Amino acid sequence: MTDRRHAPADLHRFAVETLAAAGVDDLSAEGTARALLHASLHGVDSHGIRLLPFYVRCLDSGLVRPRPQVEVTRLRSAAAVVNADGGLGHRPSYRAMEVACDLAREAGIGMAAVVNSTHFGAAGAYAMAAVDAGFMGLVVANSGALVAPFGGRQPVHGTNPIAFAAPAAGRDPFLLDMATSAIPWNAVLLSRAIGRDLPADTALTPTGEYTRDAAAAMMLAPLGGREFGYKGAGLAGMAEILSGALTGMRLGCELDGTALGDTDLGHLFIAVDPGVFAPLAEVAERVALYCATLAGMSGEGATVHPAGGPQWAARDGRSANGIPLPPAVSDELAALAGRFGLPWPP
Amino acid sequence: MTDRRHAPADLHRFAVETLAAAGVDDLSAEGTARALLHASLHGVDSHGIRLLPFYVRCLDSGLVRPRPQVEVTRLRSAAAVVNADGGLGHRPSYRAMEVACDLAREAGIGMAAVVNSTHFGAAGAYAMAAVDAGFMGLVVANSGALVAPFGGRQPVHGTNPIAFAAPAAGRDPFLLDMATSAIPWNAVLLSRAIGRDLPADTALTPTGEYTRDAAAAMMLAPLGGREFGYKGAGLAGMAEILSGALTGMRLGCELDGTALGDTDLGHLFIAVDPGVFAPLAEVAERVALYCATLAGMSGEGATVHPAGGPQWAARDGRSANGIPLPPAVSDELAALAGRFGLPWPP
Repeated sequence: MTDRRHAPADLHRFAVETLAAAGVDDLSAEGTARALLHASLHGVDSHGIRLLPFYVRCLDSGLVRPRPQVEVTRLRSAAAVVNADGGLGHRPSYRAMEVACDLAREAGIGMAAVVNSTHFGAAGAYAMAAVDAGFMGLVVANSGALVAPFGGRQPVHGTNPIAFAAPAAGRDPFLLDMATSAIPWNAVLLSRAIGRDLPADTALTPTGEYTRDAAAAMMLAPLGGREFGYKGAGLAGMAEILSGALTGMRLGCELDGTALGDTDLGHLFIAVDPGVFAPLAEVAERVALYCATLAGMSGEGATVHPAGGPQWAARDGRSANGIPLPPAVSDELAALAGRFGLPWPP
Repeated sequence: MTDRRHAPADLHRFAVETLAAAGVDDLSAEGTARALLHASLHGVDSHGIRLLPFYVRCLDSGLVRPRPQVEVTRLRSAAAVVNADGGLGHRPSYRAMEVACDLAREAGIGMAAVVNSTHFGAAGAYAMAAVDAGFMGLVVANSGALVAPFGGRQPVHGTNPIAFAAPAAGRDPFLLDMATSAIPWNAVLLSRAIGRDLPADTALTPTGEYTRDAAAAMMLAPLGGREFGYKGAGLAGMAEILSGALTGMRLGCELDGTALGDTDLGHLFIAVDPGVFAPLAEVAERVALYCATLAGMSGEGATVHPAGGPQWAARDGRSANGIPLPPAVSDELAALAGRFGLPWPP
């Protein structure tokens, strides 16, 4: 059975209308839909429209406030805080990167923390928002503990993403958007469902042994695996400190990664003016040279791309042909449509 | 044969006197000695006193200027540039982190680039300098191409380090200091010398095949190996962009990683005021809680530590018992001593 494809604009409108029907204010609904469609359009399906039913469950349960009072407070000449007021994490995150860019325009670098937040979707969405505004963007976040530290037998880190994007002259930007675990928890669930082995050194049993058996996997291992997992764990720790400690919010080990969703989350957004040290055009040319060098190494059996390469390919294909939804996702969205009296397909 | 141990202060003085004898000005000699001893004291021997003969060769060859005019220029309220003027990279790097901290004290976050630089040693030395000043510090740098991109058959990245440190209340700080390759090139040289296999998925043949044979290895693979190397490569790319492109300096692929040493290097230093979003003491307590949580997972066969754990153990041992030098390193240093008429052992 072929996945049915949907126009990005249709899914975006469906997400906005669904959230509005669930009681969410317009700005929050728009921000969440934008982040979901960023992910779906760029092939990051784990963080795409698939998450809409999850967010509705968070709203239903009272975990997430539908009509938050999002407030921005400038603290220093290059630092601001955005209070998400317990609402959906996407709108305050876009707002924070916008504020970070405004600060960076004057100060050269700008930083905004989001506090009192919930799940914010794909970190790369906000790094890309910086690029759209003409800046380099760095995003770090933590989440409930699902990932063991190197050598450990209990989860202590979330999948703690790091995203970084930079404008490139005349071509798609550099876009890194990575979890500091090797694989996401979704990959374990998917492997369980289809009875497939996990990649080596990516998951652990309850006693901290590496396993490829998805059914036996109870937590994830950090990027780097059996020999170099201390690097992935170190990056995860950096994310804990910058998003969980610096912001005054919570560490992954204080959050329950298996709960419906995390609350009291912090996220950190940093924007850098690409023209601060060298002429803007030259810097964008050098980023483009970097990206072109990697892309130019493809061929003769090798596939090489700069970070973001697969996302641009997905965007091109999906912009032209629509976003494919597997039947399971489509069924969930159809059920939401039914509940709220919205048309499906949208 | 047991490695002979030396007091850190003796090796520090020896490094200063050797560099002075090689024509280096006092501030540069002091900065380089400080960085070398940071690494040697904390067990990062690859970047320790072992490098002193390398720096002298760089000076001998004219690659590095012995008496640079290091200048700091403030560009924006949170951004400054330090011109290393082609000298040794350590002194301008310490200066840059100092400036970044000064900027962060006012602005919340501060950023300083070092331009026209050369090898700066261990990135972690400067992240720690931020902590010593009461700040969180982030350091990224690139270097000559030695590391293939994911799927690639030619080196394009340096071993491009990322270092991050944060103060923790009442205990040693969090200190991440990692190359974005799985192993350093030194590990290949060492494995060749002793005929030992390399760890799996860490090095490549000239045609881009993974190899464990150190003699066949011609370049390094990114952190993450055969399946997740795109993450290590993406982090390396972030370092290229922030230190090689943003600063107006050179990309790894424009540098010859096999030359004696790189010139025209850029490095980037970011400092964050830990008290900008939440009370300083609380943030330091949360970082300490994070570190204590990981350290507390040790035992029953597991060894777990937060990033930096092994460094503090090395520091404690070496502060008490001295820094051990293998005979090969000791012989090289003795030869330097002979050349410059300095006593050895120091």
